[in-house]
Order: sequence, then structure tokens, then C-alpha cells
Amino acid sequence: MTRPTVYGVGVGPGDPDLMSVRAARLVGAAKVVAYFRKAGRAGHARTIVEGLLADGVVEEPLDYPVTTEIPLDDPAYASTLRSFYEDCVARLSAHVAQGRDVVVLCEGDPFLYGSFMHLYHRLLGDVPVVVVPGISGMAACWTASGTPITYGDDVLCVVPATLNATRLAEALKTGDAFVIMKLGRNLPKVRRSLEAAGLLDRAVYVERGAMAGETVMRLADKPDDAAPYFSMILVHGQGRRP
Amino acid sequence: MTRPTVYGVGVGPGDPDLMSVRAARLVGAAKVVAYFRKAGRAGHARTIVEGLLADGVVEEPLDYPVTTEIPLDDPAYASTLRSFYEDCVARLSAHVAQGRDVVVLCEGDPFLYGSFMHLYHRLLGDVPVVVVPGISGMAACWTASGTPITYGDDVLCVVPATLNATRLAEALKTGDAFVIMKLGRNLPKVRRSLEAAGLLDRAVYVERGAMAGETVMRLADKPDDAAPYFSMILVHGQGRRP
Repeated sequence: MTRPTVYGVGVGPGDPDLMSVRAARLVGAAKVVAYFRKAGRAGHARTIVEGLLADGVVEEPLDYPVTTEIPLDDPAYASTLRSFYEDCVARLSAHVAQGRDVVVLCEGDPFLYGSFMHLYHRLLGDVPVVVVPGISGMAACWTASGTPITYGDDVLCVVPATLNATRLAEALKTGDAFVIMKLGRNLPKVRRSLEAAGLLDRAVYVERGAMAGETVMRLADKPDDAAPYFSMILVHGQGRRP
Repeated sequence: MTRPTVYGVGVGPGDPDLMSVRAARLVGAAKVVAYFRKAGRAGHARTIVEGLLADGVVEEPLDYPVTTEIPLDDPAYASTLRSFYEDCVARLSAHVAQGRDVVVLCEGDPFLYGSFMHLYHRLLGDVPVVVVPGISGMAACWTASGTPITYGDDVLCVVPATLNATRLAEALKTGDAFVIMKLGRNLPKVRRSLEAAGLLDRAVYVERGAMAGETVMRLADKPDDAAPYFSMILVHGQGRRP
């Protein structure tokens, strides 16, 4: 018999067909699933598994107490999230204590950004935790773009758009290929940084990669600065192509 | 009826359970599969799908004419590979001309490094090509390491170990987290670069992520410089952890 376990399962970028075979099996057999979501929303990870959950599954939605209402550098942000994550861990641990496995649905890959890692570090040592990697949102976006992201010896930099302009400029100096994530309200700043770095002409904007409504366009052709949560900018590498 | 198509299918990092549901379906239904391999070897992508292919499948192994025998900057390297890729495309196109789909098995993700992209660019415009993203080898390695690769606003740099020492040093200056790929004979150089960048203590060596014989150790504890093809070095980010 296996000890009750928390599974952090990468459910991939959006299309349920892009879940791994292992993820699909764990999701389909789960008795308890947990997932982060913005309060009042369905939650992206939960949406991906719609129709795949077993009858009678217990759902534990983990509603973020804040998203963008408090600035990231405000101490209140950290303390609010800290008690939220502790509460989440208590809820999952209660299931484990009752002998039930818990499948935490993680969009993309659980160990590449995301929120699961904050539960992971708190559970470790107390509860068995197994992580199942997933296809990342960025892989869905570069696949949607129709062009490989890296060639040969290209250096790929994955850059959160939340960085300030100075750090953005630094990050854009080094790599050969770039993925710029977490766009949202940061798009105007990113656009200026890409222009300053001489990369605007190569920048491609991808919205909803591997989801309904997938959109790909040159950033230079994007007339507005509206960038929903599921959007990224790619700058493809130009390395060796024999 | 769909036109005969070449599918570039990411089969993930090694464990067949980490193939996507779509990849598993395409692989199991394939009438023709193609895959790169070093001459005389089974080929990693082919090994991953062992036992999953349909009876009577036609196999098109694509044997690299060179791997490390000719230096990358020798013009003979590019011209040898160029005619090899053209020959591969001719073999795949012949199947398509006869009305048969071809599934090209790609380890990891087809658009993140790898060889499929060299076929992709040559096929495009002549033959319908569909790319299915996969879980990357690096995701398998950071999952194996038991620690998330990035937190909060960390910049992640993916760096090929094949770069010269100057470019390695530059790349290691910018990011918060690093994945160093294509180690092989480059490990001593990478070790020196990490030490110079003050990152040796944080560096983790991972061999055969998501495969039999998976090994994880601190790079500082690795006594030798033997690094097989399926090995990487990770430097985990240290960003925001509320």
C-alpha cells in the first residue's frame, strides 16, 4: 500500500490532449482535486480537465486572496499570500490525514513559475509529494508561432514582464532567443524595452497558445496594449541552420 | 479527407508515460515513423515508443552522418548535414506523395533545440506539417532535482554548454536560474565557468532525467567529468517565496 500522497500534476498549456498520459490517468482516477483560481472564476487548470474528472470527486478550489490589488513589493502582499498558502496546505493535509490522495492541478509545468511550488515547499517532509512535469505554456506558444524557438547554440532567456525597465533591458542584452511571460499591464513597458534592444521587428505576440481563440501576430502589428493573462511575446533564435 | 501530413511529435523526455495524450495516439496509429539516431544506436526517441507502435509500421531511421567527428565551425559540418537533411526530407516526402502520413518522433519538444526543425523548414510550403509540443528534457531534469527551477520574477537562461568560455561567462551573468544543456565533453569548461560566476555551490548535476538510472547530485560532489548526452546542470532560482 502506498502512503497517501499529494500529486502536483502539470496539466499542460490548455488543450486536454496535451496532458501527459500519466497526468490524464491521475486526473481521471482522482478522488480529491485541488486547484488555484481567481475568486469567482472557473480556474484555468480546472477548465483544462473539464469532463475528465470521476463522478463524486471532491473539489478543493484554492481562491487567491489577491492577484493584482496589492503591489508585489508591499509587505502586505507576502503576508497575505503566506497565510493563504498555509491555509491551502492545511486543507490538503487534512485529506491526506484521512487517507486520501490529493491531485493538485497545475497549468503548464508545476516547477516552472506557478503557485504549486509554495505548497510543495510547505508539504515536503510532512507528506509524500510527487510532481508530474507538464508541457509548458511557452512551448504551446512557440508551437503556435510556427517557428522553432532555438537553433544550434542559441541561448534562450525566459523573462517575466514584471521586471522593472532596467532589469528588462539587462535581460534582453544577453540571450539569442526570448520568451517574455506575465505580460498583462506590462505590455507597453515590454514594447519599449524590445524597441530599445533592437528586437521589436523580431517580436511575435501569442495569445491563448493551445487554447480556443489562439492568436499569433507580429508585435509591431498589434495595434493596442491589451494583453490578457494567457499571452506571451517570443523572439525566436537565429542560430545554426545547416 | 485530410491531406497526407508530416507530424513532428514531441515524445517527451524519456518515460513513455510523459508523452502527451495526443502524441501517444499519433504514435500508436502511425503507419510510418521516422526518427533521428546515431548510426548503430537504437535512437532515444525510438526507444521511448518501444512497444507502442502498431504492427506492420514502416520505420525510417535517419542516421546522422556525423555527430562529434567534425567540429561545428568546419564548413564540412554544415554541408554534410545539409545534404543529410535534404535526403531525409526526400524520404519523408516520398511517403507523403504516396498518400501516407509520417510521424517524426522527436525527443523532448520539437521546437526547443533538436533536429526536427531542419526538416520542418525544408518541408514547409510543400507538405502539410503539424507540430505537437512535448515535455522537455529540462523539465524532466528539474522535476528530478526536487526543486522548482524558477520562483516569482526569476529570469531563466537556457545555455548550451557548447558555447565558448567568454560567451558562457556572459550568459551566466544575467539570469537568476540556469539550465546548461549539451554537456558531454564540455563539462570541465562549464564547471570552471560556474565557479568563476560564483554559482558552483548552487549547481546541480542531473543525469537521465525521467529515465532508468536517473541521477541527481550537487555538481561540487561529482568526482569526475564524465557527462553522457542525457545530462544537464541546473542552477535553481531564488526568487520570491511568500
